[in-house]
Amino acid sequence: MQELAFQITPLSCDYNLRLLDFVEPAGLHWVGNCNELNAAYAADGYDRINGFSALITTFGVGELSAINGIAGAFTEKSPVIHIVGSPSRSDQEKRAKLHHTLADGDYRHFATIASHVTRAQTNLLDAQTVPHQIDEVLKQAMIHSQPVYIEVPDDMADVCVSATGLKTPLCISDDLPSDNEPIQPVLDRIYSATQPLILVDGECRALDIVNGELPSLYGNYTGSLGSDIYKAYFESADLIISLGPHHTDTNTANFSLIPLESVTVSISKNIVQIGDKVHRDISNGFLSRLLGALDVKRIPKVEGPPRSPAESDHVDHDPQGPPIQKSFWRFVKRLFRKGDLILTETGTASHGGRHFKLPSGSRLFGAVTWLSMSYMLPETLGAALAKSESDPENHRAILFIGDGSLQMSVQEISTIIKENLNVIILVINNDEYTIERTIHGRKQGYNDIAVWRHRYALQFFGAEEKHATENCFTARNYSELEIILANDRIQEGKGLKMVEVYMGREDVQGAPLGLLKKQIAEEDSQ
Amino acid sequence: MQELAFQITPLSCDYNLRLLDFVEPAGLHWVGNCNELNAAYAADGYDRINGFSALITTFGVGELSAINGIAGAFTEKSPVIHIVGSPSRSDQEKRAKLHHTLADGDYRHFATIASHVTRAQTNLLDAQTVPHQIDEVLKQAMIHSQPVYIEVPDDMADVCVSATGLKTPLCISDDLPSDNEPIQPVLDRIYSATQPLILVDGECRALDIVNGELPSLYGNYTGSLGSDIYKAYFESADLIISLGPHHTDTNTANFSLIPLESVTVSISKNIVQIGDKVHRDISNGFLSRLLGALDVKRIPKVEGPPRSPAESDHVDHDPQGPPIQKSFWRFVKRLFRKGDLILTETGTASHGGRHFKLPSGSRLFGAVTWLSMSYMLPETLGAALAKSESDPENHRAILFIGDGSLQMSVQEISTIIKENLNVIILVINNDEYTIERTIHGRKQGYNDIAVWRHRYALQFFGAEEKHATENCFTARNYSELEIILANDRIQEGKGLKMVEVYMGREDVQGAPLGLLKKQIAEEDSQ
Repeated sequence: MQELAFQITPLSCDYNLRLLDFVEPAGLHWVGNCNELNAAYAADGYDRINGFSALITTFGVGELSAINGIAGAFTEKSPVIHIVGSPSRSDQEKRAKLHHTLADGDYRHFATIASHVTRAQTNLLDAQTVPHQIDEVLKQAMIHSQPVYIEVPDDMADVCVSATGLKTPLCISDDLPSDNEPIQPVLDRIYSATQPLILVDGECRALDIVNGELPSLYGNYTGSLGSDIYKAYFESADLIISLGPHHTDTNTANFSLIPLESVTVSISKNIVQIGDKVHRDISNGFLSRLLGALDVKRIPKVEGPPRSPAESDHVDHDPQGPPIQKSFWRFVKRLFRKGDLILTETGTASHGGRHFKLPSGSRLFGAVTWLSMSYMLPETLGAALAKSESDPENHRAILFIGDGSLQMSVQEISTIIKENLNVIILVINNDEYTIERTIHGRKQGYNDIAVWRHRYALQFFGAEEKHATENCFTARNYSELEIILANDRIQEGKGLKMVEVYMGREDVQGAPLGLLKKQIAEEDSQ
Repeated sequence: MQELAFQITPLSCDYNLRLLDFVEPAGLHWVGNCNELNAAYAADGYDRINGFSALITTFGVGELSAINGIAGAFTEKSPVIHIVGSPSRSDQEKRAKLHHTLADGDYRHFATIASHVTRAQTNLLDAQTVPHQIDEVLKQAMIHSQPVYIEVPDDMADVCVSATGLKTPLCISDDLPSDNEPIQPVLDRIYSATQPLILVDGECRALDIVNGELPSLYGNYTGSLGSDIYKAYFESADLIISLGPHHTDTNTANFSLIPLESVTVSISKNIVQIGDKVHRDISNGFLSRLLGALDVKRIPKVEGPPRSPAESDHVDHDPQGPPIQKSFWRFVKRLFRKGDLILTETGTASHGGRHFKLPSGSRLFGAVTWLSMSYMLPETLGAALAKSESDPENHRAILFIGDGSLQMSVQEISTIIKENLNVIILVINNDEYTIERTIHGRKQGYNDIAVWRHRYALQFFGAEEKHATENCFTARNYSELEIILANDRIQEGKGLKMVEVYMGREDVQGAPLGLLKKQIAEEDSQ
């Protein structure tokens, strides 16, 4: 049984106002975001730490503004409960041409749209069925770890319904018989393996098996971009247990890291695949039952590949030179401490973040598949909120974000300030969408952005004046950056801190961006 | 034949980058917005001045972020051409699990979603049919004055297609025979009327008949909220010619202003209704043909109702008191001059704007039906861009917006600065969503917003430092406001100016908000 930790991150608007009256009296924490897309991102972020979250928006305008965030949660398996306050049942029955509708009397457009990006949808039209309807969509969210959609007509907000169902915890683990699940075939594969490995993939969070501290951890597998020895071991393995496979281009280095089917046991939510044989309808908790049945003595003793030499903590850098991609990501690691949330926005930050070695208990957020630019700032808000519930004093989130991405969702800085969260934002200022420029259009005007003065951000977005002036930093070279990272306010300070790091245009490093850069250099020399 | 004035307001992202290479070489002006929703709003704004506009976004993330803006344009009849750069045809055929997809191999989700909020959709998969496909959706946009959706796979951006079609202007006016259209029945109604009136309604822009300077203009008709004499005349009229009817709750004072069907001739795009008889398939230009056939001598001479006394220019106000809703909207009219664009955001601004008397050649933007909060700031960008094309030096746009709305789309201030547009933003600072508070939840925390320091806005968003400090103003009382409105920079200055006007919480005035306020006062006294 998973705990339902609800987080409400809505924006108020008329069709949901009556519904909102019930939020705070129910003991839920109210977070008013600056706009609905940011609210959806934040709800997703809360989710990824605390398991579940809820987002309330109004009909039409509100829900459509949020839908890109819901689609991302759908794609990357984050169960946001999207609650939509809709016009009253009588207005819907009359097909009234109300504001926030398409003025055509059709009230089903938006639910139909939502059906593409949510796992289940329900419309609370009947007090007798409401408890059952809500339970059913919540179960779908739990089973599939994906968003669901609940419409609440304005006149339903204060209708009394049966509370009997609340006495029984929502439980999905025993819904299916587990007699026929393929425990033994997997055990057989394990016992007979001579060169096995476990691949922990993108949908492991949904399987509740996030743990970056296994003693046998070899680090990120990056195929031909990493160690040749690891690659050889991977490619000649006779058993790959693939946990939470997520086989998209961006998550598999353009499909190059997908293990060979014949040697693979892949375990997803509700599906276990052994070689080419697919077992469906597996109930939650398969992995626990597998471990329960495992005879540890029969696990083959294997050596594994020789480990790559530990990366030195020394970072080659020119103290008077500007931070460059090649060394920045290893240089900045000194900032991290136990339990940190570290978030890296799509772009150079997310690529750079792959070089981080994480302290224990910390969590790294990177780009997976949806890759909606600017997502990571509101995500930081949501994740930090979730973390602050268990650790109000010492929670800390560190966001790395490019100046281009920042512009898209920048107003959510004010909610981080309002919620008094301990967040450090490192803005990579290179006056452009570097990642886009690397991909295409290196010298095109469409990759230029307006130049902002980030040093005014905290003051503009309402931080206390003294705090604002003391907690904005700028680094133009490594020596300045070193001093900033050692600063007490950065190390121990509360609230929001912002560090602007100036890096050069077209400075990208590390595969695959490094390869693209090499290509550009070759083009230039022609 | 309408002119196609294209405005590109996109945000770059990988699947559309190749497409973007063709924008500037084609002589189009490139505007990079801060995010896609703001870009859609801006495209809509450009549209409403210059007739057509185009928005380019990437697949999935980009188009879903923009969809709320497209839905608004669909509802309020603004023909935005939404161009989506999608993955290559080969990736789509392979059902590749690419980033920006839902990772399920289905490439049709987003076009299906778009079909709810666009008039026509097309997917450019075949070079032989591309010219015809584009022409057909553009015609749909022209006929219905609504958005259309064009998918351009990445590998189609540079495919050569036949240019023959470009020799013939896209023309829709003669597509239908006009022999059977009901000219004579309408003329008969006109010739026999004894108490006629013309009601100019919300979809007149689509009919190309926007003109606020008719000598026989009586002003806004507001039913029981306005003059009793006008109401009596309206309700006993024997002919109401309703141009561009748009019968939504917000556009008809909750359906109270809809004329009686039996006395009404209503003229929409492609539909003419006389009494209860609906004539469909009317080709564009019906109104011109009707006027051509009209025998002016046979128009009955009627008196019309006695006019309400002209509103005095004197505004009762306390120079040392804070601006209040009751007098602010009439006080601030002194700012307006010939040709201004005046934009009033959903909320108290839009209600207040109904009291404006407009100088000649000016245009007022108010809330109609979609009412997406924050829409009006990017709309200002788009409309001012459109206006600046015909008047680069002296164009001017004046935006009235509440502090709550401003937060949702605030970053687009930077694009107004970047594009060097002459814009005055009056921020109504009352620390809350007043309009929501009036409707419901007057004392609820969910209507509170974070407090920002607007005086840093221009500096933060990158205005030249001197310009920024000289063009931010704050008015806490009428005397300060008077001085600011007379300031040369406000009167004649170029670029962006911001005036923050502090008004009290819960200060709303004028019907229907005034009535709600009265109700609140009554509740309080109980």
